[in-house]
Amino acid sequence: MEKSIKFSNVSTHFYFDSSFKQVTKIADKKFLVVITDEHIFKAHPAVFKGLNVIVLKPGEEYKVQATVDEVIDTLIKMEADRKTVLVGVGGGVITDLTGYIASIYMRGIRFGFVPTSILALVDASIGGKNGIDVDRYKNLVGIIRQPSFILHDVAFLQSLPQNEWENGFAEIIKHACIKDAAMFKQLQQESLAGYQKDKKKLSSLIQRNALIKTKVVQKDEFEKGDRRLLNLGHTIGHALEKEYELMHGQAVAIGTTYACHISEQLRGFSQTADVVALLEQYQLPTYASFDKQKVFNGLKMDKKREQKEMNFVLLDKIGKGVVTPIRMQQLEKIINKL
Amino acid sequence: MEKSIKFSNVSTHFYFDSSFKQVTKIADKKFLVVITDEHIFKAHPAVFKGLNVIVLKPGEEYKVQATVDEVIDTLIKMEADRKTVLVGVGGGVITDLTGYIASIYMRGIRFGFVPTSILALVDASIGGKNGIDVDRYKNLVGIIRQPSFILHDVAFLQSLPQNEWENGFAEIIKHACIKDAAMFKQLQQESLAGYQKDKKKLSSLIQRNALIKTKVVQKDEFEKGDRRLLNLGHTIGHALEKEYELMHGQAVAIGTTYACHISEQLRGFSQTADVVALLEQYQLPTYASFDKQKVFNGLKMDKKREQKEMNFVLLDKIGKGVVTPIRMQQLEKIINKL
Repeated sequence: MEKSIKFSNVSTHFYFDSSFKQVTKIADKKFLVVITDEHIFKAHPAVFKGLNVIVLKPGEEYKVQATVDEVIDTLIKMEADRKTVLVGVGGGVITDLTGYIASIYMRGIRFGFVPTSILALVDASIGGKNGIDVDRYKNLVGIIRQPSFILHDVAFLQSLPQNEWENGFAEIIKHACIKDAAMFKQLQQESLAGYQKDKKKLSSLIQRNALIKTKVVQKDEFEKGDRRLLNLGHTIGHALEKEYELMHGQAVAIGTTYACHISEQLRGFSQTADVVALLEQYQLPTYASFDKQKVFNGLKMDKKREQKEMNFVLLDKIGKGVVTPIRMQQLEKIINKL
Repeated sequence: MEKSIKFSNVSTHFYFDSSFKQVTKIADKKFLVVITDEHIFKAHPAVFKGLNVIVLKPGEEYKVQATVDEVIDTLIKMEADRKTVLVGVGGGVITDLTGYIASIYMRGIRFGFVPTSILALVDASIGGKNGIDVDRYKNLVGIIRQPSFILHDVAFLQSLPQNEWENGFAEIIKHACIKDAAMFKQLQQESLAGYQKDKKKLSSLIQRNALIKTKVVQKDEFEKGDRRLLNLGHTIGHALEKEYELMHGQAVAIGTTYACHISEQLRGFSQTADVVALLEQYQLPTYASFDKQKVFNGLKMDKKREQKEMNFVLLDKIGKGVVTPIRMQQLEKIINKL
């Protein structure tokens, strides 16, 4: 299925349930430069044959300026120009880097994504947030710019490690919590193994989630309101992720658990047990002990902070997230008491 | 005089013939972070009192990623967040850096410019092109984003060296060539010394030029058509600037001279002598011997190149510029014959 979504400046064309081979129909091969990582490149060597490919080292630790410098040098050597189309084939690190580099190279060239992880398919590839980490601050530098296209090819999921599947389902559960109570129920009735076995069920779930995120972003591209809902679990999550050896989804799952508890205190939320049970059903961590002061210090540099307040995403009920400004002092107390 | 100009996403508010003191009325002092260079900071110490200031080393050689990294580190230490407003006080290097950093820090914070050179007042501060140089490629990395405000305070011109005045007039003459035959005549009747002595005449000339550039940009913010006219003299100019020790205006003046000769060959232009005479009247260089092959190789990485062609700005007559695609092979021949 194809679908074109109009954002403020450009349209993003979605190729759902498609094949990577289509990219050479989207743009002429000679203008394409593919950016991917060693994992994807080694696991799927045939698909990259005959294409210009830049292969990066895998991992969040390479989502930094040094990698941007390196790719830009390579683009210069390739004589890439304003007709060049960058295509990021990989998880969120690759799509974030590709979108960022394409947005600043020659003041912006065309780019598209082929997300290869659940997390990237349902979340990271969508919404036009591109960027890099600086020191311990995730995505501190970046830009909002929509890709020209996003192409889904679930064949890439064959090489996805089990813990990356779990990682991706954290965002799916997050979408259910903030926007889709019906999907929350569906997830309660299914299992990760079930989705992994049934390609059709999986494709449909991916598409449903991609569209949840797309609609939220479309209504609020530059994050003045509703888009902030997508940050459920991410405020504490990001701070945890930098301090401890956690995957993004694990950090978000723990962050979501604590956001539920804060929601109990501040919004009268009463379904924490259901959320925790669903996260655990999908093999995600929920409660964890952490150095609260360290995590709070990390929070202080979160982009969602505005001087003395922070916009925190809480739940009124499953399927209804709400953005709530919390004063930093109050937040520090709440976190220390958790 | 104040004037608000609407671009595609934001409006830029112009404060013509104003005073730097106004900035604290535009944004609260506690949210302001001023970026300037050592020259400006030392020449006008009083104006920066009580403000958060980041002082950079002066010169185009610092318009690079290392400086961006350094400023971002400082912003992190200052706990700058999304309410912070960056104000670039300086010439084109400072405004380019400030706009670029503000566009990528936390995915974009507000920024404004207080241009302190003729070049920055009439050209560099306007149009939202922000960026840095990479190796020998000028502005290879950057972004188009409009400032929230531009404030003119001609008091800063008191510390402007004589050669920087000449530098700025190269862009003023360029504007006359592509868009304003009447101003070309006015410039023929005046002199640099005359403008330097008469603050009112100067302010009026600056405002006229700022508005010429603004109108061209407004019609074509993302440079698909008319905006390219502003590149008169800049294609060869940029290549010369990187190879030789030239100021931007000098390089543009030489580039304009050669663009006139190419215009004779390809468009039947007949006023080269008038343009050359006016450039010389304002102490600008016109003819220069240079390594043609080196300059042509530099051209090949110009952002205006599109694979086998380059969009070159030529003149049909004074006051009427025209964008002309020239095949790279043909261009190489023409340049070698100049």
